[in-house]
Amino acid sequence: MKLSCELAWLGGEAAERDVLLEISGDQLVAVTPGAPTDDAYRLSGLTLPGLANAHSHAFQRALRGRTHAGEGSFWTWREQMYELATTLDPDSCFALSRAAFGEMALAGITCVGEFHYLHHAPDGTPYDDPNAMGRAVLAAARAAGLRCTLLDACYLHGGIERFRDRDAAAWAERVDMLAERGPARVGAAIHSVRAVDPDAARVVAEWAAGKPLHAHVSEQPKENEDTLARHGRTPTALLADAGALGANFTAIHATHLTEEDVALLGGSTVCLCPTTERDLADGIGAMRRLVDAGASLSLGSDSHALIDLFEEARAVELDERLASGERGRHDSAALLRAASADGHASLGWPDAGRIEPGGRADLVTVSLESVRLAGTAPENALDSVVFAATATDVRHVLVDGNEVVVDGTHRGIDAVSALDETVRKVWA
Amino acid sequence: MKLSCELAWLGGEAAERDVLLEISGDQLVAVTPGAPTDDAYRLSGLTLPGLANAHSHAFQRALRGRTHAGEGSFWTWREQMYELATTLDPDSCFALSRAAFGEMALAGITCVGEFHYLHHAPDGTPYDDPNAMGRAVLAAARAAGLRCTLLDACYLHGGIERFRDRDAAAWAERVDMLAERGPARVGAAIHSVRAVDPDAARVVAEWAAGKPLHAHVSEQPKENEDTLARHGRTPTALLADAGALGANFTAIHATHLTEEDVALLGGSTVCLCPTTERDLADGIGAMRRLVDAGASLSLGSDSHALIDLFEEARAVELDERLASGERGRHDSAALLRAASADGHASLGWPDAGRIEPGGRADLVTVSLESVRLAGTAPENALDSVVFAATATDVRHVLVDGNEVVVDGTHRGIDAVSALDETVRKVWA
Repeated sequence: MKLSCELAWLGGEAAERDVLLEISGDQLVAVTPGAPTDDAYRLSGLTLPGLANAHSHAFQRALRGRTHAGEGSFWTWREQMYELATTLDPDSCFALSRAAFGEMALAGITCVGEFHYLHHAPDGTPYDDPNAMGRAVLAAARAAGLRCTLLDACYLHGGIERFRDRDAAAWAERVDMLAERGPARVGAAIHSVRAVDPDAARVVAEWAAGKPLHAHVSEQPKENEDTLARHGRTPTALLADAGALGANFTAIHATHLTEEDVALLGGSTVCLCPTTERDLADGIGAMRRLVDAGASLSLGSDSHALIDLFEEARAVELDERLASGERGRHDSAALLRAASADGHASLGWPDAGRIEPGGRADLVTVSLESVRLAGTAPENALDSVVFAATATDVRHVLVDGNEVVVDGTHRGIDAVSALDETVRKVWA
Repeated sequence: MKLSCELAWLGGEAAERDVLLEISGDQLVAVTPGAPTDDAYRLSGLTLPGLANAHSHAFQRALRGRTHAGEGSFWTWREQMYELATTLDPDSCFALSRAAFGEMALAGITCVGEFHYLHHAPDGTPYDDPNAMGRAVLAAARAAGLRCTLLDACYLHGGIERFRDRDAAAWAERVDMLAERGPARVGAAIHSVRAVDPDAARVVAEWAAGKPLHAHVSEQPKENEDTLARHGRTPTALLADAGALGANFTAIHATHLTEEDVALLGGSTVCLCPTTERDLADGIGAMRRLVDAGASLSLGSDSHALIDLFEEARAVELDERLASGERGRHDSAALLRAASADGHASLGWPDAGRIEPGGRADLVTVSLESVRLAGTAPENALDSVVFAATATDVRHVLVDGNEVVVDGTHRGIDAVSALDETVRKVWA
């Protein structure tokens, strides 16, 4: 397959013009800028590598518009989330996840990291297949045309029954049974230092050697206070002691960090979820300091208050402007790297998120023919898209060489109907 | 004309169902909830009153994507804005403003407050008609189907030549000549306490008796520091001394306020421009404290980094969550009032922004048939729209009884082409 991109971002500071892409199977085999041709399908607008949604709880899509105007805090919101979590079974989890993943595909997301903790039946009893819920999520991603890394979360203390395995060994035994198959990958998660004690965290970190390992870290000041009171260490320091940190590790949120925490995370990835952090009143993290310390950034839509990685990307810069009073702390190329290559890498797909020979054939084409982006010139296309595009501007999405979205329409799913039906059903 | 709204917001905490609207000329004459009928044109989705964009510098639409990724601060951004401001003449000002107002109409904005300071030729010489630029803006709004309040700004010190009138008396003489005509209104603006000295501010405030009077106030800490150093008072206190504050006064931004400032603004309106304040690294204001002190809120897209009043509305709540760590400081109905009735009132149209008998026939219908809003139930439609809609979800817009946008298309303007042409032209 040959595609001719009006503009494409190949990783530099600006977009290249007339980029000819040659694809064989699920791979890009040739990438040639400045090669105008009539002998290829034309992609008008700006073509980007596939976007990675590095932190998702798909079922929380059903909370949109139902809790986001609420009062209270992160902690009262969590009670509503638990209420929803109690209602799902493998079938409804599949249906709701498939619909949410359909919305993601339409937003240009080609791979999702599902941080999964809905393991057992509502009363805590394992299903006949103890991975029935995880398999439902993986099947949902396949049905929606996305790659998925299932980050199976160890959750031992607190929360509700269905989140919890008996102990870390039982967690490992269950996850071992969740064989990798198809275009999916299984990684591990330490839900948080609230839910996983230090000894258990060490077991999970050992299991995860060579695989993606994610953990919620310091989303709220109270988590830090409780952890300090109980263990005399910050959550980051506890995870470092457990051997969790390093190149395969992704800290989710990492909003409230000490200087020592920032230094410890320098060799890891930090996944920012700005629309969720704003919705849940978490606060503004130390994104620039983390980058300076050597951390990579990735992005997630997390609770799906919105699903729009352009909004997540610009919010990294814009929220830090609000906190610092300074502009230009993260440039557009850096923000797009977080949304693409660095996100895919944090999910265990280092060959995705780059438009280069040998890269996975994941492509996202953003139309510039909207009132939001009209007036864009080739030399500022990258900035326009990062700072003004919305998910609705995505026209075409290719995942592993397959056309998943064409002209703004998902080829396999009617995502609007699917969302309408499944969301209404879980609240009925 | 009879319209049957699937859902309509009549000012309460939730939307009403099957609302029958009867319109005669530019007025709503009857509003009947719970009146299903086949005898009227059906508006599917949620119908809102017309939205008011209470603070606009239309020409700055040409900056989108060209400065928003930049480094530096508010003050360096301002240099780029001055560069653009120098290039425009009445014809290009008309063309660019018409295109920007077309984008606003598509976003559900039925009235714009244009804070206008591009008065004279680039070297400061008055045009033959000294209001040629202001008239160009008013004509542009008419061409795009919007009502406009031209807030003619007195600008005496600093800035560039074309902003400045000789003195406040010369400003008043010029603005007197700008007769009100058609569906437009002329109000006054004190550009800022940087640009207008206290004696001149008093002249403007006196001229503006009974008309809308706006002023940029305390957008940046440096403005406060400079004003304190020079006058020993805060900008708000200076404006209070000049007799500017009161029911007809709107403070734009009001981001960095003392407790005394907050109390002084209690009888006025504060216009928040959250996407611009985030873009320019201004900081997060004291929105809740202002409301508690008795201030009304309105919203503006200001520099047009984006034109989306849903994003402006939710940002009032969400940015304050980031600063406070608490949710639920402004509910959806309050945020929508700022975007509609309170915005129109701050522009001198107290009969607009309300779906009620006697109100102006301004209507905005938001489709719920997108992936963003799918799953919305009637009882949470208001929250869904405020917290998840984007400008692209606006399907129909009625301004003073005229259909300006139908099925997402502007009936009078091809806004995409108009923006493409005019923005490229000013940078050519």
